[in-house]
Amino acid sequence: MRQAQEEITVTTSGQGLYEISDVVRAFTEACGMETGQLTAYCRHTSASLVIQENADPDVQRDLLAFFRRLVPDGDPLFVHTMEGPDDMPAHVKSALTQTSITIPIVRRLLALGTWQGLYLFEHRRNPHLRKIVLHALGS
Amino acid sequence: MRQAQEEITVTTSGQGLYEISDVVRAFTEACGMETGQLTAYCRHTSASLVIQENADPDVQRDLLAFFRRLVPDGDPLFVHTMEGPDDMPAHVKSALTQTSITIPIVRRLLALGTWQGLYLFEHRRNPHLRKIVLHALGS
Amino acid sequence: MRQAQEEITVTTSGQGLYEISDVVRAFTEACGMETGQLTAYCRHTSASLVIQENADPDVQRDLLAFFRRLVPDGDPLFVHTMEGPDDMPAHVKSALTQTSITIPIVRRLLALGTWQGLYLFEHRRNPHLRKIVLHALGS
Repeated sequence: MRQAQEEITVTTSGQGLYEISDVVRAFTEACGMETGQLTAYCRHTSASLVIQENADPDVQRDLLAFFRRLVPDGDPLFVHTMEGPDDMPAHVKSALTQTSITIPIVRRLLALGTWQGLYLFEHRRNPHLRKIVLHALGS
Repeated sequence: MRQAQEEITVTTSGQGLYEISDVVRAFTEACGMETGQLTAYCRHTSASLVIQENADPDVQRDLLAFFRRLVPDGDPLFVHTMEGPDDMPAHVKSALTQTSITIPIVRRLLALGTWQGLYLFEHRRNPHLRKIVLHALGS
Repeated sequence: MRQAQEEITVTTSGQGLYEISDVVRAFTEACGMETGQLTAYCRHTSASLVIQENADPDVQRDLLAFFRRLVPDGDPLFVHTMEGPDDMPAHVKSALTQTSITIPIVRRLLALGTWQGLYLFEHRRNPHLRKIVLHALGS
């Protein structure tokens, strides 16, 4: 049993889904573990992780539209507004999705399903650098 | 430290919660690890995992009712509709729940609480075969 | 590679966020692993885990307000009401957040971001004792 870790940075330019499947897959395969697990961990509270369909781009558009309607920027419910109208909604959207996701490694490959992609979900409007820790564990 | 993996298939017949506690518990106990962790990973984007009360069936009925109200099938917000009125809502419900859940193994048993059950949450109306990877790691 | 486990108890006094970062950090650092991962697992279905900003207390107030509006106590949608008007909403809020969270251990420290805190999210109004299993794995 052994481990490998790497921190990757994702450059975002506004609210939306940024696919990181390829970089996570490359890291995992470079580890060369036959069997194991990969954990992705997002070090932020206004961006998060989500596994979602990666075939039709409309899925990403619709997911974004749903979260915007559910937690609208500038919602008068919120008092934490000093960092902008999209800040508190970003925290809520992060709570509603994932900060960490663990995916098995099966026969050297991530066990992502056929239509699954791993995404950083950016909830802020302004550009950000987002740090994600990848941790592989296996043999 | 050692590992074990198995892919299980859950046959679903419409939207709802399908308990998989027993099969996951059986796999875990067959591994015979004194201490460790069990990760369940759902390989789909229109079905997901959730831990929920397994005592009163009304809890499952109410959970389903809540998600149907929050993300109604046929919601005019969505443009990704070619796979049916329940497809995009299924993706959203998956994003709002879990794709992977990790449960400690304590003294050879899953650390599920007294009232906790592990469920596959099917979000599509038609029958499906759902693949879940189980990964145990421990000693 | 080695493991360590501990079950901690959090005493709650009504709906809200209870920070457990310090106790989880202390457990992790006592394990003395250079590299690894920490899983926190909540053994309940009416309380859950969430990673959230720990700087401005208004964030916690707003998060609570959002979930109360999204899943109001006493919602007439629910039939599972015998344990009180806040019971079924508690189950739904648990499903919408996390039961388990895995955080990498990097250079002996939890990889929590600068503004991230780990919280038990209590969804019931009455006082409760909440059990959380901590599981460290690494070397």
